[in-house]
Amino acid sequence: MVKVSIIGSGNVAQHLAKAFENSSDVELLQVYSRNKSDLQHLPFAAKVTDNPNGLHAADLYVIAVSDSAIRSVAESLPFEGRLVVHTSGSVALSELDAKNRRGVLYPLQTFSKKRKIDFGQVPLCLETEDPNDSVLLEKAARAISGSIFSMDSQQRKAMHVAAVFASNFTNHLYALAADLCEKYSVPFEILQPLIIETASKISELPPLQAQTGPALRNDLPTIDAHLAMLPDDNFKMIYKTLTQSIQQWQKATKN
Amino acid sequence: MVKVSIIGSGNVAQHLAKAFENSSDVELLQVYSRNKSDLQHLPFAAKVTDNPNGLHAADLYVIAVSDSAIRSVAESLPFEGRLVVHTSGSVALSELDAKNRRGVLYPLQTFSKKRKIDFGQVPLCLETEDPNDSVLLEKAARAISGSIFSMDSQQRKAMHVAAVFASNFTNHLYALAADLCEKYSVPFEILQPLIIETASKISELPPLQAQTGPALRNDLPTIDAHLAMLPDDNFKMIYKTLTQSIQQWQKATKN
Repeated sequence: MVKVSIIGSGNVAQHLAKAFENSSDVELLQVYSRNKSDLQHLPFAAKVTDNPNGLHAADLYVIAVSDSAIRSVAESLPFEGRLVVHTSGSVALSELDAKNRRGVLYPLQTFSKKRKIDFGQVPLCLETEDPNDSVLLEKAARAISGSIFSMDSQQRKAMHVAAVFASNFTNHLYALAADLCEKYSVPFEILQPLIIETASKISELPPLQAQTGPALRNDLPTIDAHLAMLPDDNFKMIYKTLTQSIQQWQKATKN
Repeated sequence: MVKVSIIGSGNVAQHLAKAFENSSDVELLQVYSRNKSDLQHLPFAAKVTDNPNGLHAADLYVIAVSDSAIRSVAESLPFEGRLVVHTSGSVALSELDAKNRRGVLYPLQTFSKKRKIDFGQVPLCLETEDPNDSVLLEKAARAISGSIFSMDSQQRKAMHVAAVFASNFTNHLYALAADLCEKYSVPFEILQPLIIETASKISELPPLQAQTGPALRNDLPTIDAHLAMLPDDNFKMIYKTLTQSIQQWQKATKN
């Protein structure tokens, strides 16, 4: 059975460790973290070590730490020639120390400590330097998710930018909407069915076709009325920028 | 039983007519449309009329037409003193002709012909000019939805602006993400679980607390790498505007 060890103690490390621990196709060998106490409440607590020299021989090591720490963690590993992958969307494979065989396992999802995630649905973007290692990495990935994609570093970085638009920026628009609701004393919860439907719709309809609203209709009286209701220049700037972009796209699609 | 007639043949008119037709607490009396043929495939086809003088006495008339047509449709109604409401988020109650009792029933959802909507979950924002009419309008609204909110025209307009941010603009960000995926030859479907989780998360966590990503972390190397990957000035403008806004909000919240 494939033996996997995790390095890290954050959200991604915890979700991955739990997923591997629950899989019957892979053995979670160890979890290494300098902050052993962060993981003591978890079901795999007995496998946690804070001694880097106490790391046993695994088939795959998954470094799930912050982007800026990946390089130094990979350099500090006290072994060579083993398969080591990181989990970042934006860090190149080449950031990993070349003394080990290198790869990437990037789970494309937003992880919070408080939210349960069905890991079996999380898309995993895989990359290996040596094509021979792809079989092993895929085997480990398939043990925890039904959604596996091979891509190179450039494609993975593009996915990461796309995810910033589709998730980080989207969430910020939710925050702005919530602020408007508060300012005009209406409950933000009213918007939730609309938000869920907008997100669900695009699984059936390409987002370009799903577009609605005053920008698309070039409904100037409504656009002006909206701008007049917005509380500050930042709101107005975002409203104008996105309205203009929708209209630009609409034109480009018609031509 | 409350008798309701619908005026209009678009998405909102059809969804409302179906919802009233399926309710046992309200009687769908008639549906008026100049384009009778648009509605012939629907279960209430027998109730459709294209003769304005053929409109029978109902307790409530719901004008579900485009914003710009509301005024003229309300003026053309061949009766007085009855309760007439429109369904727009951005049009004032006063746009309706004062010869009838006036109100608003604004369903806060995005309607497409192709998507089934559980109308029972759609928030309905209600307003009546005469407080005495609120009982009747609420009764009709409760017959089709479990989610009823009373608000004035100003609050309804604010909801409508908030919905533009949370739905129209959000959908445009999905379209930009889809375009990036296409340009770098990765399937857009990879993003769907992330998009759904981002939308679902805010029912548990206020969006300001749910924020993640390079803008929030002020991760300049990643932000620069993303900007370098974006295909044109419009993409860059939106990336910069939203990144800046996230950082501004973050500061404001910390202070």
